[in-house]
Amino acid sequence: MTQGYIGASMRRREDARFLTGHATYVDDIKLPQMRHAAILRSPHAHARIIAINPAQALAMPGVEAVLTYADMASHAQTIPVRLYPLPGLEQFLQCPLAHDKVRYVGEPVAVVVACDRYVAEDALDAIDVDYEPLPARVDVHQALQDDVVLHEAQKTNLANRYTVSIGDPEAAWREADYTRRETLTVHRHTGNPLETRGLVAQYDVGRRALTVWGPTKVPHFNRAILAKMLDMPEDTIHFIEPDVGGGFGIRGEFYPEDFLIPFAAMQVGAPVKWIEDRLEHLKAANHSRQVACEIEIAAKRDGTLLGLRAQIYGDMGAYIRTHGGLVPASTAYLLTGPYHIPAFEVTVSCVMTNKMGLGTYRAPGRYESCFIRERLLDMMAGDLGIDAVELRQRNLIQPSAIPYTLGDTRPGFGPTIYECGDFPAALQQVLERIDYPAIKPLQGTYRDGKYHGIGIGCFVKGTGLGPYEGARIVIGEEGRVSVYLGLTTMGQGHETSMAQICADSLGVPFEQISIYHGNTDYIPYGGGTFASRGTVMGGSAIHLAAQQLKEKILAIASRYLDTTADRLEFRQGHVYRQGETEPVLDLSTLAKLARPDSPYVAEAPGLDVTAYFNCSQPTHSYGAHAAHIAVDAETGQIDILRYVMSEDVGRCINPLIVKGQAIGAAVQGIGGTLLEELIYDENGQLLSGTFMDYALPTSHEAPVMEDIILEDTPSPLNPLGVKGAGEGGIVATGAALANAVSHALASFGVQVRDLPLSPSRIRELVRADPGA
Amino acid sequence: MTQGYIGASMRRREDARFLTGHATYVDDIKLPQMRHAAILRSPHAHARIIAINPAQALAMPGVEAVLTYADMASHAQTIPVRLYPLPGLEQFLQCPLAHDKVRYVGEPVAVVVACDRYVAEDALDAIDVDYEPLPARVDVHQALQDDVVLHEAQKTNLANRYTVSIGDPEAAWREADYTRRETLTVHRHTGNPLETRGLVAQYDVGRRALTVWGPTKVPHFNRAILAKMLDMPEDTIHFIEPDVGGGFGIRGEFYPEDFLIPFAAMQVGAPVKWIEDRLEHLKAANHSRQVACEIEIAAKRDGTLLGLRAQIYGDMGAYIRTHGGLVPASTAYLLTGPYHIPAFEVTVSCVMTNKMGLGTYRAPGRYESCFIRERLLDMMAGDLGIDAVELRQRNLIQPSAIPYTLGDTRPGFGPTIYECGDFPAALQQVLERIDYPAIKPLQGTYRDGKYHGIGIGCFVKGTGLGPYEGARIVIGEEGRVSVYLGLTTMGQGHETSMAQICADSLGVPFEQISIYHGNTDYIPYGGGTFASRGTVMGGSAIHLAAQQLKEKILAIASRYLDTTADRLEFRQGHVYRQGETEPVLDLSTLAKLARPDSPYVAEAPGLDVTAYFNCSQPTHSYGAHAAHIAVDAETGQIDILRYVMSEDVGRCINPLIVKGQAIGAAVQGIGGTLLEELIYDENGQLLSGTFMDYALPTSHEAPVMEDIILEDTPSPLNPLGVKGAGEGGIVATGAALANAVSHALASFGVQVRDLPLSPSRIRELVRADPGA
Repeated sequence: MTQGYIGASMRRREDARFLTGHATYVDDIKLPQMRHAAILRSPHAHARIIAINPAQALAMPGVEAVLTYADMASHAQTIPVRLYPLPGLEQFLQCPLAHDKVRYVGEPVAVVVACDRYVAEDALDAIDVDYEPLPARVDVHQALQDDVVLHEAQKTNLANRYTVSIGDPEAAWREADYTRRETLTVHRHTGNPLETRGLVAQYDVGRRALTVWGPTKVPHFNRAILAKMLDMPEDTIHFIEPDVGGGFGIRGEFYPEDFLIPFAAMQVGAPVKWIEDRLEHLKAANHSRQVACEIEIAAKRDGTLLGLRAQIYGDMGAYIRTHGGLVPASTAYLLTGPYHIPAFEVTVSCVMTNKMGLGTYRAPGRYESCFIRERLLDMMAGDLGIDAVELRQRNLIQPSAIPYTLGDTRPGFGPTIYECGDFPAALQQVLERIDYPAIKPLQGTYRDGKYHGIGIGCFVKGTGLGPYEGARIVIGEEGRVSVYLGLTTMGQGHETSMAQICADSLGVPFEQISIYHGNTDYIPYGGGTFASRGTVMGGSAIHLAAQQLKEKILAIASRYLDTTADRLEFRQGHVYRQGETEPVLDLSTLAKLARPDSPYVAEAPGLDVTAYFNCSQPTHSYGAHAAHIAVDAETGQIDILRYVMSEDVGRCINPLIVKGQAIGAAVQGIGGTLLEELIYDENGQLLSGTFMDYALPTSHEAPVMEDIILEDTPSPLNPLGVKGAGEGGIVATGAALANAVSHALASFGVQVRDLPLSPSRIRELVRADPGA
Repeated sequence: MTQGYIGASMRRREDARFLTGHATYVDDIKLPQMRHAAILRSPHAHARIIAINPAQALAMPGVEAVLTYADMASHAQTIPVRLYPLPGLEQFLQCPLAHDKVRYVGEPVAVVVACDRYVAEDALDAIDVDYEPLPARVDVHQALQDDVVLHEAQKTNLANRYTVSIGDPEAAWREADYTRRETLTVHRHTGNPLETRGLVAQYDVGRRALTVWGPTKVPHFNRAILAKMLDMPEDTIHFIEPDVGGGFGIRGEFYPEDFLIPFAAMQVGAPVKWIEDRLEHLKAANHSRQVACEIEIAAKRDGTLLGLRAQIYGDMGAYIRTHGGLVPASTAYLLTGPYHIPAFEVTVSCVMTNKMGLGTYRAPGRYESCFIRERLLDMMAGDLGIDAVELRQRNLIQPSAIPYTLGDTRPGFGPTIYECGDFPAALQQVLERIDYPAIKPLQGTYRDGKYHGIGIGCFVKGTGLGPYEGARIVIGEEGRVSVYLGLTTMGQGHETSMAQICADSLGVPFEQISIYHGNTDYIPYGGGTFASRGTVMGGSAIHLAAQQLKEKILAIASRYLDTTADRLEFRQGHVYRQGETEPVLDLSTLAKLARPDSPYVAEAPGLDVTAYFNCSQPTHSYGAHAAHIAVDAETGQIDILRYVMSEDVGRCINPLIVKGQAIGAAVQGIGGTLLEELIYDENGQLLSGTFMDYALPTSHEAPVMEDIILEDTPSPLNPLGVKGAGEGGIVATGAALANAVSHALASFGVQVRDLPLSPSRIRELVRADPGA
């Protein structure tokens, strides 16, 4: 591990093809005789389907098929939960095509397959669907009244409710000098990858083999679902991940289309392509973030935290998606954050509403809980007259208390343990960089027509989800090293960072290593890329495989050289006799010595090792954000003057990539906090279904980010010491900006309780000032 | 091994797609933007290239590129030898495009890439090549005079000459009562698969990945060559074998086009297809069989064989192909056949001529040597007044003498050993079936206007060439068994027979098993399908992998059931407790217990095992043919009244398939013996370049075959006891038919010394009768 590729800011090798226009995205897949699909989606948030008449559409020239629930009835299975399968959620799953009812605007009702997308879209209009509209429920509290029930058989819109309790909340409140109760909400928004979703499916009747281009993120899992739904053996389904223009948690889950497009290809006997358009993405790809939280804090007069009690309502939309109860459950999971809070009780309710289903968006639950907790801490600091930073420093878990067992905050996962960390140091780094003592006097001041505010947010976040990930390393006879991963990549730069890990772990020059990913045939088990697990799990698997391969190399070399393995060493792609500087064997020779008929191979032939890294505990990265903003109270416009953030990633494989991830995440967080919102009206109609209404951040909103990568506390949970990196840039954006706005507009009595902080919201808050 | 799939005549499952039109042959591969290539081939057998001017062709609309040697000069490597790399041959290899000289009619000179094949073919005519014709050498003896040298740097047309000597030939000739010297020749002909060769190549610039559809037979070997020629890592080249319409040794070797088409695709930046037309196949795919043999036999008066001395001249054509010196060397290898001949000396000469290169055709060298030896035995039987069958019976190696070490008849391979066999029994079976005593009186008689003849040929042939072959077996979580092979298949029915082997070896119902082959990504090492090695090597690899997998299954099950593996058994796809009839675990459960995070897995995760079977010694199948024919001396037409053949295959996996292989081979042998010939004129022009001139057998020529599959002597060289099957049907066709013709026309003094036995040849022989 001494070659020094790990930690170096190597340029991303995959960028060569991205920047020269040679990437292959799913829409670049063009097959002969390929047909095009369009999806008929419900215009109603809640309605009974009386009849579907496709006759007119079917009569249109170029239309080959109109598939409805009736056509797929024998395959009518619901899409299962992948993560957080809280009991009860399985009653609220979605079938790929609506049967008797539609429950959200955008729900797939029929699929048209036609000669091209234009004809397919035109045909959608010709399908006659007779709906009987029903009242919609778009608010969790209204939905909990159960007067209008989405899934009638269940008789309730409450899909799951559970409570986590740690310590003695009763006692905490008895001891408390101070309590405060608040209701805080995080708004519905979601990720918008530059490239929308898309699929191409091709069925080879002769070989009964199905190839699907486009699945990203968790292809092995999705293949298992599709195999079950189509009643095909998994080995006959091949998922290929082309290049991907962004993921962010949204893209690559199993959606209705992931069944419908392969199914359509099999039905029409020709390849079928479907590319999601932006409207479809905004209304029918996972939404995220929307939770409402009733929360109460208990503390001593000196600011010592005693307890936290909360009710978290997840607005799950109309169907439980593959993420199960993840968003509200993860909001509860680390609600106490990096602070020592002896008593903690939270009840999570998953509530069904007539909206698109809730899934993950970068740092799911983490962004939400950070906003809720850090906002409440600032309110408390104000109440107790303690500086907001000071309050945090008093309550942060000290390094001496780590490993810190938080308790069972994730039902079914065992105790949450912060395995390592120096939380105060991460905050301190940010304070020093932003020069907190120097800018603190600006807090709440009015200068040049704007109100200044400084906001802080601290976080700790679970990353590197298990249970396992694998890597296969093969050394070819020309001496090249090929690494095959079950991981996918949506822009994280794995082709570079994983090669760095392999280079150092194996002891081979970086240039000799190729990383392959995104094909379910590469490796039998693949976990996939989510929850900042790629480097933690996949990187560690590479490391393990490299160790095993090195052993094998030395065993073969020792037989060939008639010596013992401990008298040899492998480095820089060569075998050396211990202590000598001239190599005796190169990789190419070694690979030839490993042929099946070689007398030097006692183990399985080939320099070819597959290893799996297992870990049931997540790693925890942590850090802090500080924002200095100036608010125009007239326009509601927020200028971000400085934005400083820190993140301890344990060990940084490639600072250039980690920095890019952190900054990109922060820009997304700023956009999500200030601009983006998926707004439904009371009838369940999406009002922000285009980029005219759903505003994404531009370079104008993106300040110069100051990013501090920390490697203070390598994780003891994996051989590389890494923690998931990247999401740290987004976690505390809501918290820091909301705190900064509250400080800036303190003179108006403003306390931010709800996101986003759009100009119109800011104006509302200012106007609501009783003294304004 | 008791389920009984091995030995059952299961119907071929692959036939479903072949018979319903759902197979995918290489010409069915159609890619967007695909271009089409045509090859400019030399019209001269021998000429200097003065200049090539592609300007006019390049100016034609639709023409995208004209590639000549100058364009590929930086990649100008010759195509290496795969088998029988006799010293010196490496000086006579071919570059994919001709440089300064052309040496045979059909040699590639340039490649045109155009929008379609029509334009490409038209453009060929517009390429201006200035040739300076040179005298051609088309006869080996003329070529050996070295007055016209094909490869000038070598100063000779003799590429290699070696001698094998066993026993004491001098002594044999001293002891002999009888000797006879003959010159026998086998004519140039070759395999004609229904589907000609073809390739589609696609290069992904962004990922620097090359996919090639169409390589068959030895894809791993061919990929290694291509990688070297293109200077690309092997892991970036993916060879995919579509369905294949016949192989027969010709198809799937590395030809110039196997470089040129991928190279062209990379040059033009678009996929390129080339499909060989029949004229190209006949003039520019491997020719075979052509050997001339001067041979002398020594025996006692009672017919006891004492010695055999021979000179074998292989007419290698203009370049040594991937098969090296295989055809003449294999003619020498088993020239003594199944007989005990104490002294044997043979000199093999590989001679270059201005014709297409020599490669293998079904049972290469075996057909040739069988014809030579068996013809000579019949002449000797006549000379000594011994019945031809009787002579053979006296000299066949007796079972008691087996294993029988023949000696070093293959240079560099170690001693040739007949590992098992009962040669007399195989002949006896044929004699009984044809009722030799009853039909013998017909020998040479004239009835109903035709002369009757009965011909016998005995053979032993090396099959199942090593050094290794692998198989990977994976059990999926739905309980399906997938077997991945390095073997390819050109019609042998591997998808069925290999599943039978897996079913019995593993203990899983046949229906649960899928066989995958023909993709270099399936398994790191693949030997390929040639030399009747598929079942011997690949089948044995499956057996080994199944044994290892069974062990793994029982180990995992024993941990899960908290018992020991020896108290469990695995059969019918289930784990049972010893002695019980109710299974305790099924495959699906077992696969789930093998996940990487399972506590029951102590070894590598997954029910996923790759095993390689190693064997350096070939297995030897053997048998006999008997033909009863009637010859019309007026027309030269031969009617085959009965054709009986036996072949001991050690153990028969699927009698239906073996029978089909044997009969198909015999029909090919009959066609090759009676009809097919690649005739060159003295200038090296091919006169039989179409199916009008090169006559293939039809159902008219194919008699009802009587095939006897023997399993008398399972091979001790592999765990299944199998020997290569199928080629046995072709080996002795030349011998049996030539002997039958000689007997039939004995009254004309006819002794067949040369093949083929076409009507015009028969007429010539009859006319040459000094007494006619």
